[in-house]
Amino acid sequence: MSQPMNRCYRLRHRPSGAITPDDVEFGEESIPSIGPGQALVRTLWLSLDPANRIWMSEIDYNMPPVPIGGVMRGLGIGEVVASQRADMNVGDLVSGITGWADYAVADATNLLPFTVLPTPLPAKAPTLLGALGNTGITAYLGVHDICRPRAGETMVVTAAAGAVGSVAGQLGKARGARVVGTAGSPEKCRHVVRAYGFDACINYRATDWRDQLDTATPEGIDHIFENVGGQILDHLVTRLNVGARIALCGLIADYNSYGSAEPSQQTRIDAAQLLISRALVGSFLVLDHSDRFAEATSYLAELKNAGKLVHDETVIEGLDRARDALAQMFNGANTGKLVIKVAEPTRNAQVVVAGECR
Amino acid sequence: MSQPMNRCYRLRHRPSGAITPDDVEFGEESIPSIGPGQALVRTLWLSLDPANRIWMSEIDYNMPPVPIGGVMRGLGIGEVVASQRADMNVGDLVSGITGWADYAVADATNLLPFTVLPTPLPAKAPTLLGALGNTGITAYLGVHDICRPRAGETMVVTAAAGAVGSVAGQLGKARGARVVGTAGSPEKCRHVVRAYGFDACINYRATDWRDQLDTATPEGIDHIFENVGGQILDHLVTRLNVGARIALCGLIADYNSYGSAEPSQQTRIDAAQLLISRALVGSFLVLDHSDRFAEATSYLAELKNAGKLVHDETVIEGLDRARDALAQMFNGANTGKLVIKVAEPTRNAQVVVAGECR
Repeated sequence: MSQPMNRCYRLRHRPSGAITPDDVEFGEESIPSIGPGQALVRTLWLSLDPANRIWMSEIDYNMPPVPIGGVMRGLGIGEVVASQRADMNVGDLVSGITGWADYAVADATNLLPFTVLPTPLPAKAPTLLGALGNTGITAYLGVHDICRPRAGETMVVTAAAGAVGSVAGQLGKARGARVVGTAGSPEKCRHVVRAYGFDACINYRATDWRDQLDTATPEGIDHIFENVGGQILDHLVTRLNVGARIALCGLIADYNSYGSAEPSQQTRIDAAQLLISRALVGSFLVLDHSDRFAEATSYLAELKNAGKLVHDETVIEGLDRARDALAQMFNGANTGKLVIKVAEPTRNAQVVVAGECR
Repeated sequence: MSQPMNRCYRLRHRPSGAITPDDVEFGEESIPSIGPGQALVRTLWLSLDPANRIWMSEIDYNMPPVPIGGVMRGLGIGEVVASQRADMNVGDLVSGITGWADYAVADATNLLPFTVLPTPLPAKAPTLLGALGNTGITAYLGVHDICRPRAGETMVVTAAAGAVGSVAGQLGKARGARVVGTAGSPEKCRHVVRAYGFDACINYRATDWRDQLDTATPEGIDHIFENVGGQILDHLVTRLNVGARIALCGLIADYNSYGSAEPSQQTRIDAAQLLISRALVGSFLVLDHSDRFAEATSYLAELKNAGKLVHDETVIEGLDRARDALAQMFNGANTGKLVIKVAEPTRNAQVVVAGECR
């Protein structure tokens, strides 16, 4: 039997436009050895997020860019398989920057400290990376801190079938707002209305999407939860009511142009529309707000327990599929949270989910 | 002696591009007669503001557009010359929408109610229309509600020699910020630094203005008080620090394109820069916030009494010069607040300024 190895993606060069297989190198390395104050974490689940693409660019987005030759950065859940840390025992499940690799070292140099997850897990791991994790917290911060919709107001959520958008819309509904989504296919739109309870969802690939959006927002738009950018936002800002609030969460339509000499897409917001409507635009990044995580996850868990938070996860098996899966995220192929299942936990790991037989 | 008449500007058509003499008609009409619940106000001072140009367009900006054929809308100070209102006596000085006319009727139909000014006046009338009036309150709302600069942070104020910008910068200094202005000539820049106490001021007509701005903001930009838009804002947003805040007060570079078939200028804010810096953009209009006027004017008056609020007024004599004066405002010809002196008060009017011999 051959020695176990550490499969690992390293950034070869910064993407110019859409991610290509050539941008990252997938190879095998020896498993890192650990010393005092370090633990070895085996990656079990890896979260795929639009931020992965930003970290591949030259942009500092809460953390410095991944250096050329560095391991691809990614959030995940792993299992402690060796430890010289008093606060981590073998078998503990932890969340943190596992990176796109089988193994990571948890120590004081981590840009985001690994944290030990409670036992038993309060939900399945993909959910803890999704609706009850950073994804859900992102939606919470945008809706509760920036938009703050009230009963009867209209909130539009772009990428409504996506991980963040699907939660954001339900948070808006929970506050009594009329919520209208946009998504990229009739099937997704049906799911957004039926499963997530949006009042309407517009397929932005329909030729008459602008008319459909106008019809779905007869009293104008009070809030935008923006994940996309581009033409959709251009149109939405023409319909803002006075005092409108825009949570600028993401610009997935743009990310693939970062690093491109001729950006194919660069969202620019018509300032006159903001001025005329005396609008507020607030951008934010979940990783800046760790002091709010407990409040947010507590709210989200309550909503879920009350049956008012429906969430979907797309789980893809195999670390070797991470690169293609990320590229596909930018084509809008998935619904809900996209997670790579990297490995099965060992028998020791505490993967029992509270309240579930397993 | 001929009967006194009411000189009056009426909107002939909405400007296409820069204001031309043809856009408004200056004529003479009979003086309005009043009935129960009405007072006749004779305009003494007329405030010129960028908002005048917006109200000439089709945009609803707190108030509906001036109708074609309607009297040009403008804020001013007048004297009550006849009254059938219990709350207004002949000789009272009042502020409100006098319009671009010698006479206005103060009644319940006014879009903004006329208010009786205290006696004696707390400051000269042009100051009450400027640094201690809507202009100063505008600066206060942008600095105190949106930017909220703290000691050591860097705030950039565009149109720093203008009525709002000059006050905004001094409010930033009073909070301990480093304040950098932009203005349209070396003379204005010198005045901004010497008179208003800005740390630096960049002439945006200099060929190397971008380099100069970079040099003047070595630690990046934490706040922008935006009055201009266009290229300057494009450059400023590339230097935003994380958590930056932008008070979007005005876009004077754009206004002259409103109504133009081929807008010469349309400020569009690079959304990626907002996202990367997790910035906040807040737009606002002073007329929406009458509940804050007392607080703001009290603060501004204290600052003035402490010698920390220097303000300039350019007073132009004669209602017949209002149209040209407004057009020139868009060329950046004036420093500080631009006011038209329309008429002398009668002997009855309470124009004595507190603390001044007259």
